[in-house]
Amino acid sequence: MKRSRKIILSEKEMPRQWYNILADMPNKPLPPLHPATRQPIGPEDLAAVFPMELIKQEVSAERYIDIPDEVVDLYRTYRPSPVYRAEYLEKAIGTKSKIYYKYEGGNYSGSHKANTAIAQAYYNKKEGVRRITTETGAGQWGSAMSFACNHFGLELLVFMVKVSYNHKPGRKLLMNAYNARVVPSPSMMTAAGRKILEEDPESPGSLGIAISEAMEVALQDPYTKYSLGSVLNHVILHQTIIGQEALIQMEKAGDYPDVVIGCFGGGSNFSGIAFPFLRERLLNGKNIRLLTVEPASCPKLTKGKFLYDFGDTAGMTPLLPMYTLGHNFIPEKIHAGGLRYHGAGVLVSQLLKDGFIEAKAKMQRECFEAGVLFARTEGILPAPESTYAIAGALDEARKADLEGVSKTILFNLSGHGHFDISAYEKYFEGNLPDHELTDAEVEEALSKINLPVA
Amino acid sequence: MKRSRKIILSEKEMPRQWYNILADMPNKPLPPLHPATRQPIGPEDLAAVFPMELIKQEVSAERYIDIPDEVVDLYRTYRPSPVYRAEYLEKAIGTKSKIYYKYEGGNYSGSHKANTAIAQAYYNKKEGVRRITTETGAGQWGSAMSFACNHFGLELLVFMVKVSYNHKPGRKLLMNAYNARVVPSPSMMTAAGRKILEEDPESPGSLGIAISEAMEVALQDPYTKYSLGSVLNHVILHQTIIGQEALIQMEKAGDYPDVVIGCFGGGSNFSGIAFPFLRERLLNGKNIRLLTVEPASCPKLTKGKFLYDFGDTAGMTPLLPMYTLGHNFIPEKIHAGGLRYHGAGVLVSQLLKDGFIEAKAKMQRECFEAGVLFARTEGILPAPESTYAIAGALDEARKADLEGVSKTILFNLSGHGHFDISAYEKYFEGNLPDHELTDAEVEEALSKINLPVA
Repeated sequence: MKRSRKIILSEKEMPRQWYNILADMPNKPLPPLHPATRQPIGPEDLAAVFPMELIKQEVSAERYIDIPDEVVDLYRTYRPSPVYRAEYLEKAIGTKSKIYYKYEGGNYSGSHKANTAIAQAYYNKKEGVRRITTETGAGQWGSAMSFACNHFGLELLVFMVKVSYNHKPGRKLLMNAYNARVVPSPSMMTAAGRKILEEDPESPGSLGIAISEAMEVALQDPYTKYSLGSVLNHVILHQTIIGQEALIQMEKAGDYPDVVIGCFGGGSNFSGIAFPFLRERLLNGKNIRLLTVEPASCPKLTKGKFLYDFGDTAGMTPLLPMYTLGHNFIPEKIHAGGLRYHGAGVLVSQLLKDGFIEAKAKMQRECFEAGVLFARTEGILPAPESTYAIAGALDEARKADLEGVSKTILFNLSGHGHFDISAYEKYFEGNLPDHELTDAEVEEALSKINLPVA
Repeated sequence: MKRSRKIILSEKEMPRQWYNILADMPNKPLPPLHPATRQPIGPEDLAAVFPMELIKQEVSAERYIDIPDEVVDLYRTYRPSPVYRAEYLEKAIGTKSKIYYKYEGGNYSGSHKANTAIAQAYYNKKEGVRRITTETGAGQWGSAMSFACNHFGLELLVFMVKVSYNHKPGRKLLMNAYNARVVPSPSMMTAAGRKILEEDPESPGSLGIAISEAMEVALQDPYTKYSLGSVLNHVILHQTIIGQEALIQMEKAGDYPDVVIGCFGGGSNFSGIAFPFLRERLLNGKNIRLLTVEPASCPKLTKGKFLYDFGDTAGMTPLLPMYTLGHNFIPEKIHAGGLRYHGAGVLVSQLLKDGFIEAKAKMQRECFEAGVLFARTEGILPAPESTYAIAGALDEARKADLEGVSKTILFNLSGHGHFDISAYEKYFEGNLPDHELTDAEVEEALSKINLPVA
């Protein structure tokens, strides 16, 4: 009998707590500032937008936070998720390194987004909220919220970035099947959307714009709250279930990663797998590298600046200390819609600044090439976003081979690409737009904002 | 701690043998006949089309056949598959019955078809075949073969039923991503296709036509063989891994089904889950019902006749003793493309004739309604084909409730509907074609063929 191909855990082995890295960070992040007063905000400033339990999690310094039974209950429909040894991929590239991946696409939403969608819908329902508004890029987050809201009896209104709405009609239909309403953004429904459309009727939209629209609607009704799929501390917190499981699974495999890799949009799938491993480094001195991979066309971590910036385009969110390309930056229309975000979450930004995390940027074509190789060897068609993590893992394996060493690589396969198949068609046709943002373009983007340096 | 939501098995618990029901059937099926001589065929008559090991399996009377290590190895990428207790669905309909489902959509192909695709590709490769031709309806089978052939280093040419090719571009693209060539059928590549197109240039195609085209190409080259995704004994055999696992899982759940349900196209997913349970009835006297659910627009089991008929439209296959609507019957363009087949496999046909199996037919709209309810409660968007099994399970639960009893129901959720999302759009628009075939239409269809009564 050969070694198991996949490392699975029983429901009983599923961790019952999320891990909050804030407790263990040597330098705590700077506080968020009020958009008008530019003074540090308190929990009450967020109460119009989020339920109190999520606000508490946003600022909590507790190391572990219990996962409520109702959330565990829905997690049990798809968790624990498997870790695979990518033996066919290893063979295809002839590497001496070992490549593992944690697969988060095997749930109703097709990505890791379900982990926080379920938690957010639960806390909103518990506090009497009736309707949620949110944004979505490629649609993974919107799909995740659709089913979760429907499960807990909440209405959902999704502002979907227009370029993705047009590229990926399947994702919109999936949200409809899960009982959500989906509107392409920018839309005429909001002042923020109308302003953008006045300036540019052909605007492809961006996550920043969609966030502005969703927040604007939420602020108009006390029974409506807003929900965000990445960036914020409480979102990152919920995703740590991924890494908590992966730690147990790597131990079961009798192995330990030299490097943990995730693609990077706002930070949630990367942080989810990486932070529990970073805890082992911070608290127990484990030697491990953490690597993010972002698009060269939206390189906030590799070329952005560490500033106080808004999370949305219209400037409605608090100012957050983050690596950013500027809140009104509109990224190239790459197919990895979930990575088309101007900024990075506060926790990741601080950790990058302090040297605990590495970042690299890659071109879309090379990532799709890695995605097709992965599909043909491992049998899972990856989401365009996830192909960046695959490409990052291949880089690490090849580098190790050149150096004559064998490494153990773990990456997060954040989702499947079943609703992104038209992007693969473009790849096969040799018809993928791509662009490596130049330093001059970054300067220009950042010159449009005038905000305090963090 | 609540009862586990899903019943999973470790790789070590995966059965290492397929189950061959032929060994235990009270009445053995009549022999297949040569299309020209109408005499019983021998293994040598199939050698131009199939590798010898599959021909041996086709006629074997051994009760168990070992699964080769190379096949087990790929099975381990996604097997054992989970059995879920459908607790949210039960709650939504307020039933006292217990509903379980075995989910076969969690693999690279998105359906149970991978189970036989891997086996068939393996045996072909082992016997020196270089290229495979096959047909596909909705594309689940073609996707399954694409990855399997690529894995074993075989070329694949897929004739895809034209209506599905046009309805489901995503499936075609997935096959391309897995390195297969896909041609809409009827095509100009074959004499069979050209003949159909001459008579009806707008022909939507059918599985029967696509089979004729694929066989025609295979017969022209000794290094090319043909592969079928359902109907035949060896295909059914490979699918019994489903029921073999489900037996262990139901035992783990401390439960036993009163009825096992599968949707019905050619018979492979139904037989796969049902036959190991039927063995328990035949050998150990277990009391259990086995129910197939087919489309009212393609009702071979409920309205067809038990005849010797061809498996394909052009009459190239052996004559098989089967329930059929006639090999040139073109079914309504329902979205469950995998159920648009004129006949039923020999094993199921004989067992239905002998009263071991029940059959019912349902309309497309009601099945989609069941599918949407399932998606919103259980969180898996089902393939249109699988919605027939769901609708059948709901019928059983409701009937039990009306009778004031509680039943244990197990159905096979054969695949996901990620590439069928446009069919759901049609459902929501109230725009699904549907048709219940009348007795007169069945008579007319059967009058077009003149074949020996089995």
